[in-house]
Amino acid sequence: MIIVGELINSSRKAIASAIEGRDEGAIRKLAKDQAEHGAHYIDVNAGSFKREESEHLQWLVEKVQEGVDLPCCIDSPDPRAIEAALSVHRGTAMINSISLEKRRCENLLPLIAGTSLKVVALCMRDTGMPRTAEDRMRTAEELLNLLLKHNVKLENIYVDPLVQPVATDQTFGREFLAAVERIMSRFPGVHTICGLSNVSFGLPLRKFLNQTFMAMAIAKGLDAAILDPLDKRMMANILAAEALAGRDRFCMSFLNAYRAKRLQL
Amino acid sequence: MIIVGELINSSRKAIASAIEGRDEGAIRKLAKDQAEHGAHYIDVNAGSFKREESEHLQWLVEKVQEGVDLPCCIDSPDPRAIEAALSVHRGTAMINSISLEKRRCENLLPLIAGTSLKVVALCMRDTGMPRTAEDRMRTAEELLNLLLKHNVKLENIYVDPLVQPVATDQTFGREFLAAVERIMSRFPGVHTICGLSNVSFGLPLRKFLNQTFMAMAIAKGLDAAILDPLDKRMMANILAAEALAGRDRFCMSFLNAYRAKRLQL
Repeated sequence: MIIVGELINSSRKAIASAIEGRDEGAIRKLAKDQAEHGAHYIDVNAGSFKREESEHLQWLVEKVQEGVDLPCCIDSPDPRAIEAALSVHRGTAMINSISLEKRRCENLLPLIAGTSLKVVALCMRDTGMPRTAEDRMRTAEELLNLLLKHNVKLENIYVDPLVQPVATDQTFGREFLAAVERIMSRFPGVHTICGLSNVSFGLPLRKFLNQTFMAMAIAKGLDAAILDPLDKRMMANILAAEALAGRDRFCMSFLNAYRAKRLQL
Repeated sequence: MIIVGELINSSRKAIASAIEGRDEGAIRKLAKDQAEHGAHYIDVNAGSFKREESEHLQWLVEKVQEGVDLPCCIDSPDPRAIEAALSVHRGTAMINSISLEKRRCENLLPLIAGTSLKVVALCMRDTGMPRTAEDRMRTAEELLNLLLKHNVKLENIYVDPLVQPVATDQTFGREFLAAVERIMSRFPGVHTICGLSNVSFGLPLRKFLNQTFMAMAIAKGLDAAILDPLDKRMMANILAAEALAGRDRFCMSFLNAYRAKRLQL
């Protein structure tokens, strides 16, 4: 499972303050903590700062990579902010995210075309959010074909089928899960990714629901996620689900985590 | 989710003693406890008593149904024991289980043919345990066709694809899950069932693994299980997974359980 640590996001108050106050230590520490708990990418988002987004995003990338030897997931729809961030980024970044929304697509496609950047391909278009697995498949196919035509390799694409709350419509979880399975079987080599906490919006026991949904999504083939790696039960669920799904050779990751007392239930 | 409560099984010491000592109160209480925690069927097994199995099984059915207004799942390969149990059973029992093993099949088919009994159809044959989803599909198809030919309705059949330990072979969980999905889509209206605790055999944190595997199996379409309904976390996982899989209208069962403080994590 490829884990994108989601905590360095300016929509969180503490992060907005750390960015404004140029608190390098706080950013480095949060990058390190997420890395130590299993993150493979550190998401950086400065979207709540409109005019200073570029400058802040660039600073975040620098501070994160001073703290850890990991690539960033650059979380912005603004091509200038992404370029500023990429100009100081070491290694191969992930861009979060392109979609079929006309403006976003036109802005980001030139940046990504022909590169070896990883890219999150969000199943979204100007006509609105997807409801069914079919909606998601249609957008995923168009988006993948567009990216492939622009020389982005399938294995660098992370399709996000877009999780929606089951409290709004009871079919939303099932349709998301069906989309994951269909995308993974229709495009062998592509990845699927999501930030799944929306699924539990409007319900109690959200963390528990999110953890359960993760196991279900892994059963359907999900192989990447944007989440809080410090959520120990979530990480334990992922290790368990991967062992049960046959993705953990000899269950060694699960057993090693158990022996190291990292499986906290 | 159709829950078969597994606790009244003579392989458990306390149950063997209760049977031998004719402790009606203990059996009635265990039946009641399982019913109150969500069981739809009460499994009865007296298999550890060879010669007295029929007599004991019949006694168990009587005592269970004195305690609760639920059908039993009659857990025996012996047609005489099953007939004895059925002779005192009220309502429509489930028989656990027929398979393609020659002897078992010849013994049980006449009992089940043309009836409205529910029947667990285990994906097992004389050549041994299934390894792949393909193995399971082949046995399931043969067994279903045989039962259908003998006038058993599809909706009364519970296919058990047979869970095997991932510690033995890391593909066993994945192949089981794939079989559930294929059986449910190939035979609309049939059920799938399992006792899933074998999946974690040989690993630590077995309860946690079993609970996680349950959510994964529900994502693939499993709609019945033989388990301990007193395992509160397991029952909470089932409620959560059903809401997330779109099987719980307006998430009402999940919300009602939450409000009644029955979701103990």
